[in-house]
Amino acid sequence: MKKNNEILVTGDRPTGNLHLGHYVGTLENRLTLQDSYNCFFLIADLHMLTTHQSRVDELKENITELVVDWLSVGLDPTKSCFYLQSIIPEITELTVLMSMLCSVPRVQRIPTLKEKISDLNLNENYSLGLLSYPILMSSDILIFNASKVPVGEDQLSHVELARELARKFNSNYKEIFKEPEALISHNSRLVGIDGQSKMSKSLDNCIYLCDSEKEVEKKVMKMFTDPNRTSADIPGKVEGNPVFIYHDIFNSNKEELADFKDRYKKGKIGDVEIKKSLIVHINKFLGPIREKRLKILKNKDEIPDIIFEGSRRAREITKNNIELIREAMNLYTSSFDYK
Amino acid sequence: MKKNNEILVTGDRPTGNLHLGHYVGTLENRLTLQDSYNCFFLIADLHMLTTHQSRVDELKENITELVVDWLSVGLDPTKSCFYLQSIIPEITELTVLMSMLCSVPRVQRIPTLKEKISDLNLNENYSLGLLSYPILMSSDILIFNASKVPVGEDQLSHVELARELARKFNSNYKEIFKEPEALISHNSRLVGIDGQSKMSKSLDNCIYLCDSEKEVEKKVMKMFTDPNRTSADIPGKVEGNPVFIYHDIFNSNKEELADFKDRYKKGKIGDVEIKKSLIVHINKFLGPIREKRLKILKNKDEIPDIIFEGSRRAREITKNNIELIREAMNLYTSSFDYK
Repeated sequence: MKKNNEILVTGDRPTGNLHLGHYVGTLENRLTLQDSYNCFFLIADLHMLTTHQSRVDELKENITELVVDWLSVGLDPTKSCFYLQSIIPEITELTVLMSMLCSVPRVQRIPTLKEKISDLNLNENYSLGLLSYPILMSSDILIFNASKVPVGEDQLSHVELARELARKFNSNYKEIFKEPEALISHNSRLVGIDGQSKMSKSLDNCIYLCDSEKEVEKKVMKMFTDPNRTSADIPGKVEGNPVFIYHDIFNSNKEELADFKDRYKKGKIGDVEIKKSLIVHINKFLGPIREKRLKILKNKDEIPDIIFEGSRRAREITKNNIELIREAMNLYTSSFDYK
Repeated sequence: MKKNNEILVTGDRPTGNLHLGHYVGTLENRLTLQDSYNCFFLIADLHMLTTHQSRVDELKENITELVVDWLSVGLDPTKSCFYLQSIIPEITELTVLMSMLCSVPRVQRIPTLKEKISDLNLNENYSLGLLSYPILMSSDILIFNASKVPVGEDQLSHVELARELARKFNSNYKEIFKEPEALISHNSRLVGIDGQSKMSKSLDNCIYLCDSEKEVEKKVMKMFTDPNRTSADIPGKVEGNPVFIYHDIFNSNKEELADFKDRYKKGKIGDVEIKKSLIVHINKFLGPIREKRLKILKNKDEIPDIIFEGSRRAREITKNNIELIREAMNLYTSSFDYK
């Protein structure tokens, strides 16, 4: 039994496999949320197109892989809707309607948009689709009239825009939108194995949920630690050290971990020992996920059905809501039986 | 019998009544085109929202008035589809897809966009909906895979963008779009009664198709003529003189007109006589339109049916085409029965 009927929306772009950073930042959180809320998990293929419009060949395989990743960690399509953005036309419709209410300078102020433009070296030459993605994201949320949106702190500006557009619509036309609330996850960014601030596919510093035991071993062994520690007898730094950040998350043996930290600070343990232990703990964590994954892959053909059944259920809400939105704007609605 | 099956798209924003400028620039042309092409006449309510988003109260009445104007001049819903943009969700869907293929600087270069921004004194603070309207317009055309678009010369840049997006899509994904061709109308702008270059509602210098005989008389009598002619015995200028521009269009008595021009140049006829004749000719032209209008107004309740029947027929094409577009982009299509 769900605690309440509040609608929650979150999702991922199907740009490749999910990694430990996704688990820590959002997937773990969703496992709890799916029992408490009426959850809609978005497969954001239109968002993928904002930056990967030439990589459509991989789209369907990426979508399947994303759902395999979701299922393998325990997201449950009988509890929540898994839905595909591009087959919910009400989302694009609302995007166009909302774009009338949002100024160009307002979207240009979104920090993650600036970040993307600079990461991709686009200068002034980015697409209108990329410039509009914050409105698309607001529409992802508002089309469900969602009240909760779990985000990392870096994504708060997106929820802020959705709240603004909800207020603007309500005051211009009619009070129909809730202002969605951000549920902030404080573990939003997991450091990469190279010590970069964020585990990210494009930085090639990830441990994926689908990595084998051997891959985990290889990646952890070359992990960035305390750069000033050139031999095992030099006292090392624990704070901000990626190896210890990962231990804190994946090592449930608190006694062992306290001992490691103590000896590390005193220069009485080598990196290799710490890393070997971390490999065991990460593989212990990934074990059940891998096992589940194998079972899921045997029934991979059923994944489109999961997506289409979820999308069908999602559309029961989006179709109804777009009618309310049109009515509020004095547009004609399907009471004229145009469909 | 239509000469061919080529698809032609054109339309108007439902922002108020149509005037003689519309007739000369496009409606007259459409009367011929509807017999030769498979015509789709767009009621562009989403385009109205790009600049009139706070005036939605008048939307439904404006839509009805637009169709009354169309019918009164002889556009025929049994020959062509009259369709309402906001109830064709495939248009907004294609707009979002095409926005991925179009850079922000590219749309910013559209001259009519710059003109609108400056006319409305928006400076930098215009909406993303306004910035995107050229892509929306391209999608209006491309969703039908239209091959012909009748435009005035000032709107050529819109067709150029649609052609570019068609090419870009075809080369990125799959050859599915025709490059739509502009059918240029050379009478695109009719001078206003105040002598301004364009008859335009916002300049309040229009003679409307629905104006009464008295209104036409009042408006023509105060019309701008040759400003240097302070009395009837001064030789006057015929070229560029609004009164003669209108005579050239609406006075079918070529002999009378030649005589007027001759005497005007010699300073042998007063403005009043020329204007009184113009009133007769314009009222003669508007007579059958007014008569038809009265009949249509008696069955005004049937207008939504005309729109919805046209939109239903339009969607037979747009639904099919969006599937081809999705397939070309490797997006999932409704073969998965998601609808």
